[in-house]
Amino acid sequence: MSLPAEFALIARHFRPLAGEGALGLADDAAVLDIPAGRRLVIAADAMVEGVHYLPGDPPATVGRKLLRVNLSDLAAMGAAPLGYLMTTSFARGIAEDWIAGFVQGLAEDQRAFGIAALGGDTTATPGPTCLSLTILGTAAPGAVLMRAGARADDEVWVSGTIGDGALGLRVLRGEVPGDAEGHLVRRYRLPEPRLALGQAIAGLAHAGLDVSDGLVQDLGHLCRAAGCGAEIEAGAVPLSAAARAALDADPALLPVLLAGGDDYELLFAAAAADRAAVEARAAAAGVAVTRIGRFVAGAAEVAVRGADGRPLALPRGGWSHF
Amino acid sequence: MSLPAEFALIARHFRPLAGEGALGLADDAAVLDIPAGRRLVIAADAMVEGVHYLPGDPPATVGRKLLRVNLSDLAAMGAAPLGYLMTTSFARGIAEDWIAGFVQGLAEDQRAFGIAALGGDTTATPGPTCLSLTILGTAAPGAVLMRAGARADDEVWVSGTIGDGALGLRVLRGEVPGDAEGHLVRRYRLPEPRLALGQAIAGLAHAGLDVSDGLVQDLGHLCRAAGCGAEIEAGAVPLSAAARAALDADPALLPVLLAGGDDYELLFAAAAADRAAVEARAAAAGVAVTRIGRFVAGAAEVAVRGADGRPLALPRGGWSHF
Repeated sequence: MSLPAEFALIARHFRPLAGEGALGLADDAAVLDIPAGRRLVIAADAMVEGVHYLPGDPPATVGRKLLRVNLSDLAAMGAAPLGYLMTTSFARGIAEDWIAGFVQGLAEDQRAFGIAALGGDTTATPGPTCLSLTILGTAAPGAVLMRAGARADDEVWVSGTIGDGALGLRVLRGEVPGDAEGHLVRRYRLPEPRLALGQAIAGLAHAGLDVSDGLVQDLGHLCRAAGCGAEIEAGAVPLSAAARAALDADPALLPVLLAGGDDYELLFAAAAADRAAVEARAAAAGVAVTRIGRFVAGAAEVAVRGADGRPLALPRGGWSHF
Repeated sequence: MSLPAEFALIARHFRPLAGEGALGLADDAAVLDIPAGRRLVIAADAMVEGVHYLPGDPPATVGRKLLRVNLSDLAAMGAAPLGYLMTTSFARGIAEDWIAGFVQGLAEDQRAFGIAALGGDTTATPGPTCLSLTILGTAAPGAVLMRAGARADDEVWVSGTIGDGALGLRVLRGEVPGDAEGHLVRRYRLPEPRLALGQAIAGLAHAGLDVSDGLVQDLGHLCRAAGCGAEIEAGAVPLSAAARAALDADPALLPVLLAGGDDYELLFAAAAADRAAVEARAAAAGVAVTRIGRFVAGAAEVAVRGADGRPLALPRGGWSHF
């Protein structure tokens, strides 16, 4: 009996991604064992063509970004990655080359992050391509990083640099000039999940998440979960040289940097007394971290102070699909 | 800080679905413990508006079907359900009533199957709605039902009745008349995951899966995994009264019944010596099972014999999206 096109597509492209437990992607489900003494940590994120990535983005970076935004959720929990399931609803008539490039990107990052595919589903849609990925990881009991737990007087920390992804998207749209070296576009297409940092600070940081909706909005999530407010200094927010150059050229880009999203950096709360410990653990994880403000008693509001110490008026922050 | 519409939507509709471990759907990931001595079984299936369900289908049954086709994958592995993650890419401008109905259907079946939501992602698409669900379950080591393992001379068993879903779809499309009592349409919209049966026969059956692509094609999957063939008798395939009436009215519907898909019944292989044990376990699980043929040495081909004992010529079977 010959196999229809769907099965041939899975066999040709997706089966090589399969890891132990995936049963060759040929069974109804994957079967695996969670190591004794570890908790299962699991998250799912979707990406839609034209919404979360641009039709012109290279398919390999679309695959890698799909994996990385999910890995970033594990990083935000202090978890180590285990594997993933993926459902792909490809636009009808999509070029097989696109699928091959997408899978090649997944394969590259599977190797980089030491994980493999466990299962999923491949189908078609008359609309734009919809991709959904469920990531599995594990964490030690007592070392899971949650959103709730920040306390007044805790310090606000962030990893890496903020605003690159939001600027990169605008460079691709022709709204922001520059980026001759492609740093901003690369950061938009290939976020860096801070897995080592997340595991290093779990158990030390009081609360944390990954910045996907925008720094100010995501800090608001930590505030609401904690029942307190936060103040940050705009001038303390770490920027890449490329973002700094864009901001110098157009100071009106500041809200894009602070509220644009697509950063996938870790934003977390730690006691001031633990400042040196945070720095030591981040250094051991090989990730730069920066103190940008502190949590304060009061309503769950985020104040961003400018160079003059006065609050900046930012447009309503963050990214919503509705 | 006010929350944008996406978060309000999640809080209003999806948060009530959250179970233990889901952290109120407010964290970056769910955290849960797999009971000691159990293996994790996990699968993901997607449904696209206009492809896997009809735009006119009631939203509650769309939610229930999304859950049930995934639960059917657990049933096919002999696993017990634990919970699920879901990503929803809703068509822009979808009525909130539709979302409310969809969630109400999920809530109803969560109660029926004793599971809860663990996490996910809600976004929008300019195309038709794309839904993706990842189901988690557990199984005892040594009692997982796989596709591989059928042996020549094993008997071919199937649960429930075959062809109802494929006929129900055609009734909704106006291609098949009748179904005055709505049995076929109900079976198309609300498949019955055979969870109790799957767990009952795991460890006894040699191989099994759930029939989603069509009886003949899925039997072909068991044959390829086993490296043998199979022969079934068309007249032995169990039909509902409604399907029997449709077939009597139009005998040309036989290929639709045997290869149409959307059955979500269990198809499995068991030794002839275990016939009584299979029947006893199925009776204890409250599910009718029927012997429809046997596996045979030779190439991985499926022969369907008619009343005269001669092979029927069926069109190439099964459902492919490409």
